[in-house]
Amino acid sequence: MTNEKSPVRLTAVDKPGQPLVSPELEELYRGFEKEMLVPLWIEISGLMPQHPQSKAQPHLWRWNDILPLAERSGDLVPVGRGGERRAIALANPSLGGRPFVSPTLWAAIQYLMPGENAPEHRHTQHAFRFVVEGEGVWTVVGRDPVPMRRGDFLPQAGWNWHAHHNATESPMAWIDGLDIPFQYETESQFFEFGRDEISDAERTTPERSRSQMLWGHPGLTPIGAIPAAPGTPLLSYRWEHTDQALSDQLELERLGFDGVVEPGHAAVRFTNPIGGGDVLPTIRAEFHRIRRGAETAPRREVGSSVYQVFDGSGVISVGTEKWSVGRGDLFVVPSWQEFTAKSEAGSTDSDSGGLDLFRFSDAPIFEALNLHRASN
Amino acid sequence: MTNEKSPVRLTAVDKPGQPLVSPELEELYRGFEKEMLVPLWIEISGLMPQHPQSKAQPHLWRWNDILPLAERSGDLVPVGRGGERRAIALANPSLGGRPFVSPTLWAAIQYLMPGENAPEHRHTQHAFRFVVEGEGVWTVVGRDPVPMRRGDFLPQAGWNWHAHHNATESPMAWIDGLDIPFQYETESQFFEFGRDEISDAERTTPERSRSQMLWGHPGLTPIGAIPAAPGTPLLSYRWEHTDQALSDQLELERLGFDGVVEPGHAAVRFTNPIGGGDVLPTIRAEFHRIRRGAETAPRREVGSSVYQVFDGSGVISVGTEKWSVGRGDLFVVPSWQEFTAKSEAGSTDSDSGGLDLFRFSDAPIFEALNLHRASN
Amino acid sequence: MTNEKSPVRLTAVDKPGQPLVSPELEELYRGFEKEMLVPLWIEISGLMPQHPQSKAQPHLWRWNDILPLAERSGDLVPVGRGGERRAIALANPSLGGRPFVSPTLWAAIQYLMPGENAPEHRHTQHAFRFVVEGEGVWTVVGRDPVPMRRGDFLPQAGWNWHAHHNATESPMAWIDGLDIPFQYETESQFFEFGRDEISDAERTTPERSRSQMLWGHPGLTPIGAIPAAPGTPLLSYRWEHTDQALSDQLELERLGFDGVVEPGHAAVRFTNPIGGGDVLPTIRAEFHRIRRGAETAPRREVGSSVYQVFDGSGVISVGTEKWSVGRGDLFVVPSWQEFTAKSEAGSTDSDSGGLDLFRFSDAPIFEALNLHRASN
Amino acid sequence: MTNEKSPVRLTAVDKPGQPLVSPELEELYRGFEKEMLVPLWIEISGLMPQHPQSKAQPHLWRWNDILPLAERSGDLVPVGRGGERRAIALANPSLGGRPFVSPTLWAAIQYLMPGENAPEHRHTQHAFRFVVEGEGVWTVVGRDPVPMRRGDFLPQAGWNWHAHHNATESPMAWIDGLDIPFQYETESQFFEFGRDEISDAERTTPERSRSQMLWGHPGLTPIGAIPAAPGTPLLSYRWEHTDQALSDQLELERLGFDGVVEPGHAAVRFTNPIGGGDVLPTIRAEFHRIRRGAETAPRREVGSSVYQVFDGSGVISVGTEKWSVGRGDLFVVPSWQEFTAKSEAGSTDSDSGGLDLFRFSDAPIFEALNLHRASN
Repeated sequence: MTNEKSPVRLTAVDKPGQPLVSPELEELYRGFEKEMLVPLWIEISGLMPQHPQSKAQPHLWRWNDILPLAERSGDLVPVGRGGERRAIALANPSLGGRPFVSPTLWAAIQYLMPGENAPEHRHTQHAFRFVVEGEGVWTVVGRDPVPMRRGDFLPQAGWNWHAHHNATESPMAWIDGLDIPFQYETESQFFEFGRDEISDAERTTPERSRSQMLWGHPGLTPIGAIPAAPGTPLLSYRWEHTDQALSDQLELERLGFDGVVEPGHAAVRFTNPIGGGDVLPTIRAEFHRIRRGAETAPRREVGSSVYQVFDGSGVISVGTEKWSVGRGDLFVVPSWQEFTAKSEAGSTDSDSGGLDLFRFSDAPIFEALNLHRASN
Repeated sequence: MTNEKSPVRLTAVDKPGQPLVSPELEELYRGFEKEMLVPLWIEISGLMPQHPQSKAQPHLWRWNDILPLAERSGDLVPVGRGGERRAIALANPSLGGRPFVSPTLWAAIQYLMPGENAPEHRHTQHAFRFVVEGEGVWTVVGRDPVPMRRGDFLPQAGWNWHAHHNATESPMAWIDGLDIPFQYETESQFFEFGRDEISDAERTTPERSRSQMLWGHPGLTPIGAIPAAPGTPLLSYRWEHTDQALSDQLELERLGFDGVVEPGHAAVRFTNPIGGGDVLPTIRAEFHRIRRGAETAPRREVGSSVYQVFDGSGVISVGTEKWSVGRGDLFVVPSWQEFTAKSEAGSTDSDSGGLDLFRFSDAPIFEALNLHRASN
Repeated sequence: MTNEKSPVRLTAVDKPGQPLVSPELEELYRGFEKEMLVPLWIEISGLMPQHPQSKAQPHLWRWNDILPLAERSGDLVPVGRGGERRAIALANPSLGGRPFVSPTLWAAIQYLMPGENAPEHRHTQHAFRFVVEGEGVWTVVGRDPVPMRRGDFLPQAGWNWHAHHNATESPMAWIDGLDIPFQYETESQFFEFGRDEISDAERTTPERSRSQMLWGHPGLTPIGAIPAAPGTPLLSYRWEHTDQALSDQLELERLGFDGVVEPGHAAVRFTNPIGGGDVLPTIRAEFHRIRRGAETAPRREVGSSVYQVFDGSGVISVGTEKWSVGRGDLFVVPSWQEFTAKSEAGSTDSDSGGLDLFRFSDAPIFEALNLHRASN
Repeated sequence: MTNEKSPVRLTAVDKPGQPLVSPELEELYRGFEKEMLVPLWIEISGLMPQHPQSKAQPHLWRWNDILPLAERSGDLVPVGRGGERRAIALANPSLGGRPFVSPTLWAAIQYLMPGENAPEHRHTQHAFRFVVEGEGVWTVVGRDPVPMRRGDFLPQAGWNWHAHHNATESPMAWIDGLDIPFQYETESQFFEFGRDEISDAERTTPERSRSQMLWGHPGLTPIGAIPAAPGTPLLSYRWEHTDQALSDQLELERLGFDGVVEPGHAAVRFTNPIGGGDVLPTIRAEFHRIRRGAETAPRREVGSSVYQVFDGSGVISVGTEKWSVGRGDLFVVPSWQEFTAKSEAGSTDSDSGGLDLFRFSDAPIFEALNLHRASN
């Protein structure tokens, strides 16, 4: 990650589409190397494939395997200035051991012990939290304490000051999603340290955040509120609403009306009340519910997605991989790899349910640049 | 560029901001490695720096060094299906020997011998041609033959069919710019082969392209024309207009009126007549003219730029580098590195001139995603 | 409202800014009249005033005066094909006796007797219903039955099929707002008759509309639903949400945080979840709550507004008019006339309240055309 | 145009769709009148027709009839503060003798004598000039002198200071188009007087305006220029470009390629280089060229248009009207009236030509509000 010099190395090879190997060609290639040049005819098949060839690979992280490691970090790793967060990132097995779940996305499990505080900072990387279990941590965004409970989705657009504190007697784990790899690769990131300690007023634990009081009413925009652009001013999307919205879609389907994505497959997108688009400029977040026994149609999409199983169980296929999954399990769908999800018939944990999946992706990047494609 | 497995390797180190090294910590790290996890506290300074730390470095390619290599390629490397183009890319010295001038941009010198044809293909990568010297090649975009002459800028948005043919007795070189690295890293690229040979009708060499006849009149939109989205329908921006626009700005300055960017610095952006924005969804292109003796104010910007000296001579500073430059020389300005250009007092090659610089950059990516920043 | 010929009549007058009266001038004016010409110098002060001079005037309609007339219409005027609706429009006293509350807006009281049905039709005029008292009517929009209850706001964008039916034993009155005058003046309206009778399935009276089930969840967009453009797909904005949003703003103010428009003045705008803008392309709708004893700052705005008092009492000033108002009263604020509202200190009908005002206006027209201005 | 009181007058009539006439109904209607109410059932057919029923009627003004009256005004009517402009407006024969060519548009012939100056003012009404013959007047917009010559189109967005001066020995006439009726009806207009005399520097008569030097180059945006929003920063669209663009379209058609609107019908829209949309927020301007012998397909459109014949001759049909027209003739096409134009076979005045028509309309109003419709 430093910019040390790396030479160009070119090999003349005798194969179709390549120039005839000769001493003159070798001499030309040495000239290219000396001048830091690489001919297209050597690289074209790798660089310009007929469709996306993901460097990342499909992979599953089991909640039961990673949660104990997060808990153990709670014992061994303090939270404070410098390390900033007790966050442990998923590293895609074919991305060089780096903490990148895909070429654009970061996904981590974060863990906070009773009474702990994660210090304030801000960064241009767009972020969110999603809670698969537990409660008791408040994320303090722009001095507004926002409670975190099972099923809540908490976006936090770039350059907002934020800290976390655990107000309870129990530790709590949750999922962080960010666009760290994207901003790292494209070199657009800024970071600033904030206060080491938040104020007592911010350690209050109100039932609802101020952002929710202003922006959490359906179809109603507060005329007096001035949001900090960009990204959504609504800092928490509560589970009760998400759950209701998904139940409503399946109920409409049962009554014979339109509303679901496909048979037995309800889905909502978390959106910014200002402008109606994605919650974050680089990250899309969605919640999918697949009725017991239903299965989604195979689908490929440009860009990568990470899913966490929120409830129920089922079978997931990504490219040539296939996994049985349950609560808390996380997996990545690389670019243009075929994806299907099947809800297991035997699931009885929810009347409406079946399989509940939280999903986030980098789709807004491609849509903003007219590079999005999907096939199914 | 294949997705082979790469393990996670973590080293516990005894330094500030890191947890105390202990056998238990080592055991935890082995657990992380096994589960493909990487803790943030180890990586945060590299991944989340206080401002962009470019992996690319500033670098200069001399026209007099690279043109002879292109010419020699004309002798040794045939043009045809498979290799597709006789294009030789600039490889940034600190990007691993790959043909990436920056983490997002591709810049290459392309070369076509008398009578040669480069076969038709299309790809989602957005592209342009810029001609620093010579003429006689027609680029055929969507079956519309577009002449290329010194100073012309020829954008070609993704997924347009295109081929080239050299209708003259002389070889011709020009510059290609694309977003290949960006689409490679984000895995959004598609590619398709077209006809091996273009038709006789496309080998005609009209003075003006059909796109120019329809879209090349200032402020006038043809009501009957349906453009192929996205990207500009105008396939050539002719030098005579660019030159006039820059001269006009300097003339307005001389008369005491506003118009230039800063004293002695005129500049135009190539824009899409539909929507008025950048010519390509991921690439910005500009032309800058710096009056003899003038110097631009130091400026940093998120994202990278490539410049080619079109005319005149001067001194360029990028970060800690400083070069005297002349016609045809190419250099890269990595993200957030300070840039200045000084036109040499002694230049006499143009009344209006001084130093003429063609520039392209990845700015539309950052602007579309609310990640753009500049400081000066 | 027919296009019969109307001659030009010009009078030469002897006053400053006008040409000298002479036989030659008179002859010229006769020439103008013959050729259907009118010189600017005669008309300029009326046509191009220094600020808007409203043709409409401020006016108040008392609920207690107009409701009995609506009730009486219930006895005397049948509802059916041809007349279409038992709607009685407010006629601004200085707009020629036409049913225009302002030059752009229509406001009417509509009345439906037990068991009655208003037949289906559609039109390009954008419309909404607002309920100041009562319940029991379902408005059926695109075959989706939508309940109407006190405080509910029900937008219905142009060209949606719609009918109403009263499913109860009691009559019901409500307010209709439309852009009829605007579309009449600019001649952009279309109208089509639908079915005379809605189906039994549409006579059901579900607690929630299908539109609410799909679009009524805060910040959540149904991925599978395809809305009919333009205008909001959410067909009812329920009172419970509006009330809560206004209470929340006043509560935030009490706690010392931002959120209200000005001291003691909470307000929300009804917005389209798709795009986040106004509910209707030509009509803005808002709800204002003024804390007991508070008063709004004087304000002028381009365009006209209609208010209905939903609850509480207070004193309203519009231009040189001043009225004490109570529940159900309706008034119009013409363009650029100064407006203030004062909540009466003695009101005790609501803990949070004071004065609750529903408002609609033509502001989206002016904002879309860059003609909006406000001063305060 | 003042807001004097006008009573409501209602007549109970015995016809289908109306309530039974009775003493009780008469009493109800008297109650409506007293309370300033008008029932929908009386007005619906006029207010909500099945398609636009234009209050305006098709009408033709002959250049040979109106130019002499403008010339005579030059003798009798001084230009100066108060009357502001020697502009004579076309009054549609069925719009009450008011200077409205349609319900939204103003069209006038303006006339300036040698050496005369029209004083500076500004207004929110959007305006343009179009020159059918002559030259020698400079319109000074924001202190930038802009020459006016045959075929030039000169837009001037609302709230720009502007004056005119005639620098020649000859009088000059041209056409003004504004949205005065629209802003008058909707009550959104502001007006301010500027300097009585422009400076000597503004009386210069440069070949090109500063706006043209900055914004008049195809596809090139000046990076250093800050435009005054809204409306185009390009203050003149020169005839040479318009003529070339139209010739090019017909040449493409001759060569067998796409480009024209329909056979023999070339057309361009004048557009804002910033954003690429219409030149003015409320006014669209276009130029149409119909090849000798060709005829446009019948077409209806929401909103009204005014045409001026720039060159050639032909036959125009609007609704039930039909006229032979020649240079300078002006006519109005009211909303939803069918329009066709036929170029006369015998015209020999231009190789490319046939019939050249300048057109302006209120289409941007309807497009911005989702009310536009066209049929053909």
